[in-house]
Amino acid sequence: MSYKSDIEIAREANKKPIQDIGAKLGIGTEHLLPYGHDKAKISQPFINGLKDRDNGKLILVTAINPTPAGEGKTTTTVGLGDGLNRIGKSAAICIREASLGPCFGMKGGAAGGGYAQVVPMEEMNLHFTGDFHAITSAHNLLSAMIDNHIYWGNDLEIDERRIVWRRVMDMNDRALREVVVGLGGVSNGFPRQGGFDITVASEVMAILCLAVDLKDLQKRLGDIIVAYRRDRSPIYARDIKADGAMTVLLKDAMQPNLVQTLENNPAFVHGGPFANIAHGCNSVIATTTALKLADYVVTEAGFGADLGAEKFMNIKCRKAGIAPDAVVIVATVRAMKMNGGVAKADLGAENVEAVELGCPNLGQHIANVKSFGVPVVVAINHFVTDTEAEIQAVKDYVDSQGSEAILCQHWEKGSAGTEELATRVAELADSGLSQFAPLYPDDMPLFEKVETIAKRIYRADEVLADQKIRDQLHAWEQAGYGHLPICMAKTQYSFSTDPNLRGAPTGHSVPVREVRLSAGAGFVVVICGEIMTMPGLPRVPSAEAIMLNDAGQIEGLF
Amino acid sequence: MSYKSDIEIAREANKKPIQDIGAKLGIGTEHLLPYGHDKAKISQPFINGLKDRDNGKLILVTAINPTPAGEGKTTTTVGLGDGLNRIGKSAAICIREASLGPCFGMKGGAAGGGYAQVVPMEEMNLHFTGDFHAITSAHNLLSAMIDNHIYWGNDLEIDERRIVWRRVMDMNDRALREVVVGLGGVSNGFPRQGGFDITVASEVMAILCLAVDLKDLQKRLGDIIVAYRRDRSPIYARDIKADGAMTVLLKDAMQPNLVQTLENNPAFVHGGPFANIAHGCNSVIATTTALKLADYVVTEAGFGADLGAEKFMNIKCRKAGIAPDAVVIVATVRAMKMNGGVAKADLGAENVEAVELGCPNLGQHIANVKSFGVPVVVAINHFVTDTEAEIQAVKDYVDSQGSEAILCQHWEKGSAGTEELATRVAELADSGLSQFAPLYPDDMPLFEKVETIAKRIYRADEVLADQKIRDQLHAWEQAGYGHLPICMAKTQYSFSTDPNLRGAPTGHSVPVREVRLSAGAGFVVVICGEIMTMPGLPRVPSAEAIMLNDAGQIEGLF
Repeated sequence: MSYKSDIEIAREANKKPIQDIGAKLGIGTEHLLPYGHDKAKISQPFINGLKDRDNGKLILVTAINPTPAGEGKTTTTVGLGDGLNRIGKSAAICIREASLGPCFGMKGGAAGGGYAQVVPMEEMNLHFTGDFHAITSAHNLLSAMIDNHIYWGNDLEIDERRIVWRRVMDMNDRALREVVVGLGGVSNGFPRQGGFDITVASEVMAILCLAVDLKDLQKRLGDIIVAYRRDRSPIYARDIKADGAMTVLLKDAMQPNLVQTLENNPAFVHGGPFANIAHGCNSVIATTTALKLADYVVTEAGFGADLGAEKFMNIKCRKAGIAPDAVVIVATVRAMKMNGGVAKADLGAENVEAVELGCPNLGQHIANVKSFGVPVVVAINHFVTDTEAEIQAVKDYVDSQGSEAILCQHWEKGSAGTEELATRVAELADSGLSQFAPLYPDDMPLFEKVETIAKRIYRADEVLADQKIRDQLHAWEQAGYGHLPICMAKTQYSFSTDPNLRGAPTGHSVPVREVRLSAGAGFVVVICGEIMTMPGLPRVPSAEAIMLNDAGQIEGLF
Repeated sequence: MSYKSDIEIAREANKKPIQDIGAKLGIGTEHLLPYGHDKAKISQPFINGLKDRDNGKLILVTAINPTPAGEGKTTTTVGLGDGLNRIGKSAAICIREASLGPCFGMKGGAAGGGYAQVVPMEEMNLHFTGDFHAITSAHNLLSAMIDNHIYWGNDLEIDERRIVWRRVMDMNDRALREVVVGLGGVSNGFPRQGGFDITVASEVMAILCLAVDLKDLQKRLGDIIVAYRRDRSPIYARDIKADGAMTVLLKDAMQPNLVQTLENNPAFVHGGPFANIAHGCNSVIATTTALKLADYVVTEAGFGADLGAEKFMNIKCRKAGIAPDAVVIVATVRAMKMNGGVAKADLGAENVEAVELGCPNLGQHIANVKSFGVPVVVAINHFVTDTEAEIQAVKDYVDSQGSEAILCQHWEKGSAGTEELATRVAELADSGLSQFAPLYPDDMPLFEKVETIAKRIYRADEVLADQKIRDQLHAWEQAGYGHLPICMAKTQYSFSTDPNLRGAPTGHSVPVREVRLSAGAGFVVVICGEIMTMPGLPRVPSAEAIMLNDAGQIEGLF
């Protein structure tokens, strides 16, 4: 049997007008700002009018540590949303927007796969509704205003060596990682070192995704620390007077985007912060809006549960005042095998023993998520090469951990493949079992928060940090930032900071290389290991094969 | 009497749904891709289906050399379009999109003024339908692919010192004019000098505005020269294999945008190339589409007639196979006074003598435009401070040149102020008097083309150019580029290359500083004097005052 590609399936989609999708959620046509016939933004006044409604149930989809085998977290999010609608529930999904730059490198789309996709996938992987372009503009306006302030006399006494606000571009362009700007003489300003990150790494992205409304957005933008003086006192975006204009640039981008799944169910696709130096979740405004409009809202968080779910709980839920009613952890037989020591090339052969050897990675994620007080179910995302015995091995293991694993075949069958999962998830969410609490209180000292995450989630023995780093954290506490949550930036491939250490390692150390204050977003970033904030293109970028065919369709994007 | 600001008038606009505006032109709802309720793109398949229709009449609005007093070219374009509709004609206007970056410096919007405006003005001055962001992305993808090609071994043998493709950003950021990229070690590539232009200066912008369809767009993108080898042989975007992906990024941007005037008449707002290093006209596809849908199409060209109209005729009309049926030259009493030697501060006082002294600037533009074989009428854009005697002086002068000047009060009265102009323009356009011919044939040698423009349009005695520049032009002729038209880049403030030389100077010299080949756009840029392709921000950028008010409206943008 041969399978159709994602793009072939997406092209055959029987899309409904976006107004019909909005109608499913009770959104009147006048409150939808259309972008073409299949995309719309939900108007701010309509959102403002929802405040007094009850919330639906919130379901988080997270996963084991990612492996090259692929776990299918977004695909499962889409499949579960369609499954809930199939069993008669009113459900919507909330996922992140894709970054444009990486599509021209080698990364595929971020809109699901097989028969569990969100459409229109081409637009979602290109400009979509322009949100990321707006973020790029707002970020770079601030950058330009900083250098302009210095150019015209530097009244704020910015120390040019201590400018921490870089520039951004939504493009994989390694040549921009480290640059010198301001060359060419007096009229071009003062030469200094700078650099570019990819747009999704911008603090503006994290702020857009955490702000609850436009007022909160502007306040957070104003709170951004852009530079320091020689005396180390901070200079804020507010001091540069950029916060108002940045808010204006982001006004439309703050409105959540509505699209649809292949099965014509509503999908909110909004925001897309990095999951290492930021919190990796779709926007708060999309999630809270969806909760007012649907009985069940299925959302996801970046990377595995050690990073994604932890930040979803400790950053997004804490700040937005929301809590998950159930959590789905996605696992695959193939990924269990890789965690059990099998190489990618050998994944085709049945290997129950390796599956069993790899399962403790899943087990640790189950225990971690349960520690937040929320009920858990495991979704086994089915691959056609999986054997009955391998699947049973995963199920048995999860049973032994006091949870349940359910086989899902949404990739091949759409919602027909997630009926069982949807039924169980709805039961759990409705059960009232969830007693969510974040992992640490606001008033715990910053370094203790890091230790709490490292010991309780990563199962490390210790956190290693120079005195300089501890002093910095202490200084931020003195400056009034001690209440902030921690945003851990470490490899997504392991519970530890060593990407090659699969499974469920314990007793390891977590070395902290650097700490950064994202004062606007409202978290302290703790960097463990190398974190790349501007990707490069591969030897043969996928851009070389991307083109319009004679029918005007896009080829090569996926 | 006090007058409302442009933004106040725009906010009071009684906008119709964009589908109603499309219906005026016979565009079905299914062929309009809406962006919100007041903007839409016209679908490519619909445009493709118009090929066999007759064209309406094309009217160009151009102007005297701009002065700080302001001439009101876009305002007059809008007013004339509304006036034609008022007298019962089916008319549409075609203007350029505004650049986002300069709005945060000090430039106001580009959507007309008073009661002759296009709306929604805020969106048009911010992200609009994302066209410029798409151009930025396409441009910078090519940039990234060039450095990436070198990084992975440089099979094409690009001479890193001879990369002519810079990067772009839609932001006034002087610090990016000259930069060094690729710093930071092996993994970031090879350090080299580069720089950023503002997006409207991108050759991609000029290409988008000259391409007749997507196939032509891709061919032109492929023709871009990005660098040279040590042996001076050119390397094209096609060699980098970027043309397909760039076309995909520009697919939506190629579709013209439809909005409306304050009087609910159709306005095509599409493309916005620089008027110095590029040709300064809205897109060919918007103009040719409008000509199929309306009986009269009013469009404009950048700067004064010496630059804008000349390029409209010699570049846009030549390439698109279109011709103007009538030309309107906009003049103001105030600008005539400044040409007659009055300082801006003294413009308030009546000064008929100065008006008369300044009129030869207008006279030379009238004669120049007539030399293309097209009928001309002068529109005097009325300011409330103009006196009867001053207005009469302009009318008398224009009479003496064998043309007619008509007073227009569209800024104050909308279409009620342009009835006379509209009536006369329709007569001229319908008269069949136009016998358009470009100024020079394709096969004239490049340097002779420059001399022809300088002598016949600027009334210069000579063109000064080093042997090196003449050799370069000759080399391009040998390489097969001799048939291209010339794109002059000189100051817009004077017929000469000295911005302070107002009036109608003769006998001057035109020194050529540099020549550039825009092989994709299809013209040779001849640079006379300093041309700024990346603006800076002023001491107090307008961004500092731009913000959302409590009603969610944008303040300070204009």
